[in-house]
Amino acid sequence: MGQSPVSTDVALGEQGKQVGYLRAPASTNSSAWGSVLVPIAVIENGEGPTMLFVGGNHGGEYEGPVALLKLIRELQPEQVRGRVIILPALNLPAVTAGMRLSPLDNKDMNRVFPGRWNGTITEVIAHYIHEEILPLCDAVIDLHSGGASLALMPYISMHYLDDEAQRERTWQAMMAFQSPLALVMKEISGPGLLDYAVENMGKVFLCAEVGGVGMLAPATVNITEVGARNLLKHFGVIEGEPLSRERRGLSPMQLMEIPDADCYQMALSAGIYESFYELGDRVEAGQPLGQIHFVQYPLREAEVMAAKRSGMLVGRRGPGGVAVGDVVGVVAMETGD
Amino acid sequence: MGQSPVSTDVALGEQGKQVGYLRAPASTNSSAWGSVLVPIAVIENGEGPTMLFVGGNHGGEYEGPVALLKLIRELQPEQVRGRVIILPALNLPAVTAGMRLSPLDNKDMNRVFPGRWNGTITEVIAHYIHEEILPLCDAVIDLHSGGASLALMPYISMHYLDDEAQRERTWQAMMAFQSPLALVMKEISGPGLLDYAVENMGKVFLCAEVGGVGMLAPATVNITEVGARNLLKHFGVIEGEPLSRERRGLSPMQLMEIPDADCYQMALSAGIYESFYELGDRVEAGQPLGQIHFVQYPLREAEVMAAKRSGMLVGRRGPGGVAVGDVVGVVAMETGD
Amino acid sequence: MGQSPVSTDVALGEQGKQVGYLRAPASTNSSAWGSVLVPIAVIENGEGPTMLFVGGNHGGEYEGPVALLKLIRELQPEQVRGRVIILPALNLPAVTAGMRLSPLDNKDMNRVFPGRWNGTITEVIAHYIHEEILPLCDAVIDLHSGGASLALMPYISMHYLDDEAQRERTWQAMMAFQSPLALVMKEISGPGLLDYAVENMGKVFLCAEVGGVGMLAPATVNITEVGARNLLKHFGVIEGEPLSRERRGLSPMQLMEIPDADCYQMALSAGIYESFYELGDRVEAGQPLGQIHFVQYPLREAEVMAAKRSGMLVGRRGPGGVAVGDVVGVVAMETGD
Amino acid sequence: MGQSPVSTDVALGEQGKQVGYLRAPASTNSSAWGSVLVPIAVIENGEGPTMLFVGGNHGGEYEGPVALLKLIRELQPEQVRGRVIILPALNLPAVTAGMRLSPLDNKDMNRVFPGRWNGTITEVIAHYIHEEILPLCDAVIDLHSGGASLALMPYISMHYLDDEAQRERTWQAMMAFQSPLALVMKEISGPGLLDYAVENMGKVFLCAEVGGVGMLAPATVNITEVGARNLLKHFGVIEGEPLSRERRGLSPMQLMEIPDADCYQMALSAGIYESFYELGDRVEAGQPLGQIHFVQYPLREAEVMAAKRSGMLVGRRGPGGVAVGDVVGVVAMETGD
Amino acid sequence: MGQSPVSTDVALGEQGKQVGYLRAPASTNSSAWGSVLVPIAVIENGEGPTMLFVGGNHGGEYEGPVALLKLIRELQPEQVRGRVIILPALNLPAVTAGMRLSPLDNKDMNRVFPGRWNGTITEVIAHYIHEEILPLCDAVIDLHSGGASLALMPYISMHYLDDEAQRERTWQAMMAFQSPLALVMKEISGPGLLDYAVENMGKVFLCAEVGGVGMLAPATVNITEVGARNLLKHFGVIEGEPLSRERRGLSPMQLMEIPDADCYQMALSAGIYESFYELGDRVEAGQPLGQIHFVQYPLREAEVMAAKRSGMLVGRRGPGGVAVGDVVGVVAMETGD
Amino acid sequence: MGQSPVSTDVALGEQGKQVGYLRAPASTNSSAWGSVLVPIAVIENGEGPTMLFVGGNHGGEYEGPVALLKLIRELQPEQVRGRVIILPALNLPAVTAGMRLSPLDNKDMNRVFPGRWNGTITEVIAHYIHEEILPLCDAVIDLHSGGASLALMPYISMHYLDDEAQRERTWQAMMAFQSPLALVMKEISGPGLLDYAVENMGKVFLCAEVGGVGMLAPATVNITEVGARNLLKHFGVIEGEPLSRERRGLSPMQLMEIPDADCYQMALSAGIYESFYELGDRVEAGQPLGQIHFVQYPLREAEVMAAKRSGMLVGRRGPGGVAVGDVVGVVAMETGD
Repeated sequence: MGQSPVSTDVALGEQGKQVGYLRAPASTNSSAWGSVLVPIAVIENGEGPTMLFVGGNHGGEYEGPVALLKLIRELQPEQVRGRVIILPALNLPAVTAGMRLSPLDNKDMNRVFPGRWNGTITEVIAHYIHEEILPLCDAVIDLHSGGASLALMPYISMHYLDDEAQRERTWQAMMAFQSPLALVMKEISGPGLLDYAVENMGKVFLCAEVGGVGMLAPATVNITEVGARNLLKHFGVIEGEPLSRERRGLSPMQLMEIPDADCYQMALSAGIYESFYELGDRVEAGQPLGQIHFVQYPLREAEVMAAKRSGMLVGRRGPGGVAVGDVVGVVAMETGD
Repeated sequence: MGQSPVSTDVALGEQGKQVGYLRAPASTNSSAWGSVLVPIAVIENGEGPTMLFVGGNHGGEYEGPVALLKLIRELQPEQVRGRVIILPALNLPAVTAGMRLSPLDNKDMNRVFPGRWNGTITEVIAHYIHEEILPLCDAVIDLHSGGASLALMPYISMHYLDDEAQRERTWQAMMAFQSPLALVMKEISGPGLLDYAVENMGKVFLCAEVGGVGMLAPATVNITEVGARNLLKHFGVIEGEPLSRERRGLSPMQLMEIPDADCYQMALSAGIYESFYELGDRVEAGQPLGQIHFVQYPLREAEVMAAKRSGMLVGRRGPGGVAVGDVVGVVAMETGD
Repeated sequence: MGQSPVSTDVALGEQGKQVGYLRAPASTNSSAWGSVLVPIAVIENGEGPTMLFVGGNHGGEYEGPVALLKLIRELQPEQVRGRVIILPALNLPAVTAGMRLSPLDNKDMNRVFPGRWNGTITEVIAHYIHEEILPLCDAVIDLHSGGASLALMPYISMHYLDDEAQRERTWQAMMAFQSPLALVMKEISGPGLLDYAVENMGKVFLCAEVGGVGMLAPATVNITEVGARNLLKHFGVIEGEPLSRERRGLSPMQLMEIPDADCYQMALSAGIYESFYELGDRVEAGQPLGQIHFVQYPLREAEVMAAKRSGMLVGRRGPGGVAVGDVVGVVAMETGD
Repeated sequence: MGQSPVSTDVALGEQGKQVGYLRAPASTNSSAWGSVLVPIAVIENGEGPTMLFVGGNHGGEYEGPVALLKLIRELQPEQVRGRVIILPALNLPAVTAGMRLSPLDNKDMNRVFPGRWNGTITEVIAHYIHEEILPLCDAVIDLHSGGASLALMPYISMHYLDDEAQRERTWQAMMAFQSPLALVMKEISGPGLLDYAVENMGKVFLCAEVGGVGMLAPATVNITEVGARNLLKHFGVIEGEPLSRERRGLSPMQLMEIPDADCYQMALSAGIYESFYELGDRVEAGQPLGQIHFVQYPLREAEVMAAKRSGMLVGRRGPGGVAVGDVVGVVAMETGD
Repeated sequence: MGQSPVSTDVALGEQGKQVGYLRAPASTNSSAWGSVLVPIAVIENGEGPTMLFVGGNHGGEYEGPVALLKLIRELQPEQVRGRVIILPALNLPAVTAGMRLSPLDNKDMNRVFPGRWNGTITEVIAHYIHEEILPLCDAVIDLHSGGASLALMPYISMHYLDDEAQRERTWQAMMAFQSPLALVMKEISGPGLLDYAVENMGKVFLCAEVGGVGMLAPATVNITEVGARNLLKHFGVIEGEPLSRERRGLSPMQLMEIPDADCYQMALSAGIYESFYELGDRVEAGQPLGQIHFVQYPLREAEVMAAKRSGMLVGRRGPGGVAVGDVVGVVAMETGD
Repeated sequence: MGQSPVSTDVALGEQGKQVGYLRAPASTNSSAWGSVLVPIAVIENGEGPTMLFVGGNHGGEYEGPVALLKLIRELQPEQVRGRVIILPALNLPAVTAGMRLSPLDNKDMNRVFPGRWNGTITEVIAHYIHEEILPLCDAVIDLHSGGASLALMPYISMHYLDDEAQRERTWQAMMAFQSPLALVMKEISGPGLLDYAVENMGKVFLCAEVGGVGMLAPATVNITEVGARNLLKHFGVIEGEPLSRERRGLSPMQLMEIPDADCYQMALSAGIYESFYELGDRVEAGQPLGQIHFVQYPLREAEVMAAKRSGMLVGRRGPGGVAVGDVVGVVAMETGD
């Protein structure tokens, strides 16, 4: 394996707060010797665990970057025990463009891990993270928001894990985040996730999905900020107890699971999808979940889709327009459903 | 002025329900003698006013098309006194593409009225509507949803009108719609609106904005459907009294106004816009309304924007990403604010 | 009306053969003071009529340009009585790109006549032709080939004309072309055709459609070359009698008509169109003409389309893929059908 | 090697007819958790060989998908001995777009075998076919049509094979297809073909090229349908004897070969290619085959190309426009030429 | 004629320095109620002439914007007698994109004057300038730089003008600019120039071309800055005498003319253009000026182009690559050549 | 590793001059069995070293291709001792498009070495060069020109090399080139360069950068031509002594170095970059090097950048517009600085 061309102006291992960038060379038609400068902050003080917070793994997901930019400015070294690494815009070209994939190579950063040292720009960045940053970390928190195509109930999530100790550590961390919903889940999105890369190293990995449809709302920014600080407290990197929802006068965090692919409801026709339910509603397997309209044919009856699983609707298609294969509904089940 | 190349297979003036299309010739690289077929429905029975309902004036706004497709299928001629014309997807290529503008000529249908008989495809369709359909109508209701770039409180709206009788007729109709909000407003969007075309003919014009950020939600579909039927009742085209919000156990429709350009708050920097308020919140002139973050520069302080008007936040930027000149907030004022 | 910015290096009115270009200024991102150079040939000798031959009105139609390039090289002034003007590639940027529309402004040259002196590049060229070239001509022959989207029986055609003398002159010229088929027809393609521009000046206009689906075949090149020379003979510009199909041992030219829009069969669904007939086959109104398949849904029955007119299939969709509104079949009727 | 993310809802090994899809996850800007659903049919009954029919390996080639969609609907389990697997649109995004390559990753499916489990969407699908479907098959028939850029005589073909038994089995199968032409050939198109993947497993592979220039014609659909059923009969999967061309009153299938790269004639200039011959004509090495015209330069003589091989013209450039390196003619040789 | 939708936050007629923008509404897919904000500065003090400086009429031309941004910041009202209006980036979307044409509508701002109040965004801005700004001005100076496609000797220029008084006033102003070269010239670029719009109002118009090939160099910024200040002095708007080149120890400004289209040398083939001369060299009519190479054909001799005019080479193609119709050389003639 | 699909019509090892192409199969939407034909010349005579000259490694860099096209036509076998291989347009699709990267796969040829036999077209060509051409060579000279984004002083360069003998041979060759500047340098552009591929084989590699900003100038063509012939002489492939700059009455070639990444000055803001220095000027570390202007905000002060290294400015950003991460200045240091 070759050597990463990525360099950085922050020195991991130094005490204090450093804000700089990872420089990844990018030869383009408009810049022969150009670079992508991925912002990075490192706040380090004394002994303690290393936590990595990631925002902007996808472009068009704004809560993570905003919460992390604020955290970078607010968090002082003297408040920290250990090390906090923050990448507020991991796929910077995608974040800048406001699109899920990088406009430079049309890649989803969260599908290319562990990356390639001599691949396209997105793969090169992923490779550097995988080789140089992840090995330093005890826990990685990846802050997503659903993006342009999905509306999601704000949740923190973990995968089903084989290793009991890892599962337990991850579970404890997840419970500290204190979003409205916590999910144990199985993905349907294929290989290359940052998640698997971290999990394979035996570390704690959590994925937050807070916000959606490309929007940024005060409430979801708040959940993200509180959750991030709760995790810092949980790991003892900053002082204090995680702030529970109950303490804030809110209903307790609900725990559910997404055990298989049938929880993801897929459009089998292209058209306009009308959901019959809002996020948080109870849906019943076999009952109508929504329907697809065909605007070119006013007299054609809408195609009704039946739910495949009973449970709570925790996600649905963001835009009205759907193509074949798009996820239009995500149903989470209570443990025991 | 030349003759429109648009033809139709529905016969205006015939009794009964007809569903067909307006055929507008469109020469493209993939179809030499192709056409755009804009769906149209006409439901006609006896004497009475003619009402035109328009959906899909912009693509990516779904409540109107869905509510109107359902109305086409449900409304029977024997329920009608007069005539209902429904164009559920006026800018069909835009609706199909899920984009505000037509992908065929990059035009906003709602900026090209009164159209041109020998213009681009969007102008040709606008011209036909202007010459052949609008003159038949007593009232025109244009159903919008904010689209990909705006989150809006559901409202029905009219413009400030000089003619007192027209203003009064329009006002009465607006009050019948019964959405959460009703607005009397001034636009900042330039010429070419369908609105002005209808108003200049001395007719009633209402614009509904129900939904946004490209989404389609059960609640906003419902507001649109109830509002459309309320207007049919108001004009006596179908039987019954408009169903008031109070009768449905909801708070009464709120009446506000947007008297000038200062009610539209504009981004003066590009970045990520974080609103400090949700739709419906009270904002105060001179107080912070939101701020813009700069993801490439974690240490740069966010740019705080002060509200220019006091009132209620009725609209805000949908996606987090903003460019210079984008509207990030719309403030409506109470009469007398 | 302003003055055309187009200039030329050929001198109309001079005796002999001149080959040059029309220079139309075109400001683009890659050329600030660039020009489009539309090739033109003028072969002039003594007294006689002026005939204009046009190829490349659309890009991707190759028989006209090839036949005319050969004619330019072969025709000598001493063979001519009068004047032959040849524009082998009227919409040069489209011809070069092999696309129906100009890549510079996305315009169909044959939809923008009479053009605009200060319009886009395609309109500017059309305007110059309309103002400077057409007034000089007695007859205009426009050589098309169906292009990428249509397969057509080779035909020469004229429109229904109100003026009896013009109709008779046009008819006589059409009969001289001697392609397999001659059509009197009504268009469905909207305004802006070169055809109407010429006809409105009271001149003879003929449109040949020889070839199709973007291909160039020896047989269709031959029909075009023979037809062009036959017309030169018919008008007495070169010596000799038009060469009849009978003299060449072929079946006589068949005369048919396309009297209305129902002769053009339009797809009402998107999918793969399978024609049940080949060009030249007899079809019956009300009988199946073809069907549309849906590749995403193997079990969905194909949608069968019934013919709206009885007659001969003279055109059909070229590519298998169809969109709503595409012409999939053209039926010509015998006089008296 | 990692595990394919592709899943399916059909159960290979179950008796009866199943029609479903292969689900390949595809993260795009418009669908975060979207999927491509490649249609698949399996018709299985008792003991017997497994045959795979593939259509839509390239988009814009329509005979295969249409013939296979019909076969899926018509073929009943009780008619079958063994198993028929049908992929009517292998590269579904390309088929839907009507383009040779997938619009999602700009890949030619038929250049990426054996695929990559963690590659782009086209590679991921190829990998799944290679790992999960091909090993089950005794024979694979890949139905092509030339596509937008080539006009081809309808043929069935095999490669020169080193293994005698495999060559003999393949030859016998090829002779059963009964198209106008059968070819033994060498490719010039580089690695990654489905062909090689199947041949390397020691199985029978046949490639049909029936149709072209993106068109779909009754005659070529018919050849494809008859050929597919003939192969089913040849392998004993359905009853009956292959239907010979002679039995249908047609000339016998002609057997020829394409032994080397010189049989493919390549354009060395960009321009408009005029073939002097039609498909099926005899051409002589060293004699003019066609010529290239230069539309910007009417007086420049066309560039004549001499044939490099004597034989029959079995393929030629579809569109008139050619670029340097495009194949403009394919000459097949009689055994012994 | 309708009313412009453009508004501004600067008050023409007020004393002092104001910096704001012209707001032109722009409906796009990413911003429903968006605007283009064209920066404008007005510096006004007492009685005196009004001068307008324009930069960024084209994007990718940087000296004008940079010199004018500096001028805006440096110039204080108390230094001024009269009024200076500065538009440093007239076609802002083009300037931001670094492209000659606006990416919003693919229009060259300097080809659309006098604009259209209801046209595309570039036309709307041009119309506002034409109607609201130009009538206030005594002199307009338009600062260009050749852009990506042209290398030019730094010059100030005026057109041949019929009106003697206007010609004299313009001449005097031109002589004050003091760039290396001054040109009286005829354009070949067609209608719609800002130049003609101003000249038709009887005002002084000067066009500077200083810099090129998209670059920004210290020397050309300096020429632009000195020239702009010289003109302010010439018109008495700021104090002092124009600073002559002689005073700066430089050779005197050279005066030449470009009387006709033959001074612009045009490529008649596509390839790589190799100029035999540098800017400022003397060229002779009929002698080789440069040659075009064909990279695909190493053995093809380069096409040599002979100069059509004798004089000084004042401009040449910037990039090596040329298309047919591109200007590759501009020859200026001495008065009397 | 698989076998390259690339073939050629030139026979390496034959005496005399051959000019042909490397044929790389390229399946595209417009050409199913198309190929890219990369021009190659081989001039061989008797015993002697093999030298490879490469032009067009990037598109939009014209001196190399022009100088090499001339060399191919001029150099006769009888003048040669050994072998000269010339690839005047290595990345032909990029050269034809005039863009740095190939338009077929968006790859920079000079970032993909050693290539992949089954990769994208650019990788396939690189692989063939790496496997079939490089092993034959004693020295490789790669002729670049800065391209659209960089203005560079004309230089010849080598890397810091570990192997002393290789370093010495390379150094001697570099000194023979005789451009204004010679550089020993470290790259910042990541892996995949042709340079490293050659160096790893222990051969002599030189990179010339002569010209820039996409232009082609007589002076830089001359430097390239003289340099190429000097190297042929240095290696004894043609007769004579390298022509020194002194012999031509020019200042001696200057020798400098670029030892680390700080010599490359990078923009940290997007805007318009104004360099305070011209190429060849002396700059001092810590002193202002240039500044970035913000055209949307006339009153915002420009951001001044301080030089990080003292030395000579040998490169700077070509176009005025810069993005974050673009190189805006390159400072070379004298040995001992």
